[in-house]
Amino acid sequence: MGRWGPDARGRLEAAALELYTERGYEQTTVAEIAGRAGLTERTFFRHFADKREVLFGGSTRLQDLVVGAVERAPDTPAPLEAVVRGLEEAGAFFQQNVGRLRRRQAVIDANAELQARELSKFAALASALRGALLRRGVADPAAGLTAEAGIVVFKTAFERWLGETGQRDWSSLLRESLDDLKAVVAGDEAQADPP
Amino acid sequence: MGRWGPDARGRLEAAALELYTERGYEQTTVAEIAGRAGLTERTFFRHFADKREVLFGGSTRLQDLVVGAVERAPDTPAPLEAVVRGLEEAGAFFQQNVGRLRRRQAVIDANAELQARELSKFAALASALRGALLRRGVADPAAGLTAEAGIVVFKTAFERWLGETGQRDWSSLLRESLDDLKAVVAGDEAQADPP
Repeated sequence: MGRWGPDARGRLEAAALELYTERGYEQTTVAEIAGRAGLTERTFFRHFADKREVLFGGSTRLQDLVVGAVERAPDTPAPLEAVVRGLEEAGAFFQQNVGRLRRRQAVIDANAELQARELSKFAALASALRGALLRRGVADPAAGLTAEAGIVVFKTAFERWLGETGQRDWSSLLRESLDDLKAVVAGDEAQADPP
Repeated sequence: MGRWGPDARGRLEAAALELYTERGYEQTTVAEIAGRAGLTERTFFRHFADKREVLFGGSTRLQDLVVGAVERAPDTPAPLEAVVRGLEEAGAFFQQNVGRLRRRQAVIDANAELQARELSKFAALASALRGALLRRGVADPAAGLTAEAGIVVFKTAFERWLGETGQRDWSSLLRESLDDLKAVVAGDEAQADPP
């Protein structure tokens, strides 16, 4: 497959993740990523602004998927339920990429700059979800608060999912996280005895 | 007051905010900030790592204040209530600095790098709140979810407070934001008609 191959982007993502895992994010150059993928630096920069963004291309696809699902959801469910149903749509993408997503998270967790970028991506997702809810006729402050609550559910479920050994699927982890959030926000969560 | 004056830090913060507001964050140098404060660059770097951090010194003080209050709170309230009471402690600090905090937010809102730094500060506050809850005997996942929910309440209330013209105080805005979060998480928030 040449540099115009339809999967140049995917090959660059795979090569970058391999190199970040093998020798660390800081120590890897764009030239090395392109070389590992059998492509040129020029091709790399046609797809990604820099070596950081290679790790976050999937975030944009995820956002489009989830926001689209929220916009298309039937009008009936409560706003947070509509968001959680939208987040459920990410399950197939996650399941197909479980190994890659675990390695990616390990790279991010080891680097403060990447963690900051991940926070920005979550903030962008919250903003996009709020926009989708506003278009569904949900008013602020409910739209903004529902989007923020959805991000809390998403982050909690995603962390659990990455730590799972395949026993439970994305949807059940999302539901569990939603139930846990409902309990703490309602104040039902009993205070444990001090240690 | 000389460079060893007890308020060198405060003078540098005030000078930086003046300059960022007058000519923009990007266009301001550390030398200019130090000059405006009547101090040297050397003194600046004794207090702050760089010109970005001048805007976030207050975040650390806020975190110490709120986390300390959560740790000292009586054992009885539900965890999220303990967090909100901790956040209430910030009211006096906010009220004394309302003009400065509004100008600071305008500087942050105009710059993507500063917005990213603000997100990192919120993440650090969430992490510190989770730690305080764990020390109070709250187990995970409740500790982590309560901390995240507390940050959502804080951000919502703070945005409202900055936009207020002095009609309502910090505590009542916090309570209102908590009630709004409770409503959307419980699913009570009625879906409005589509526009």
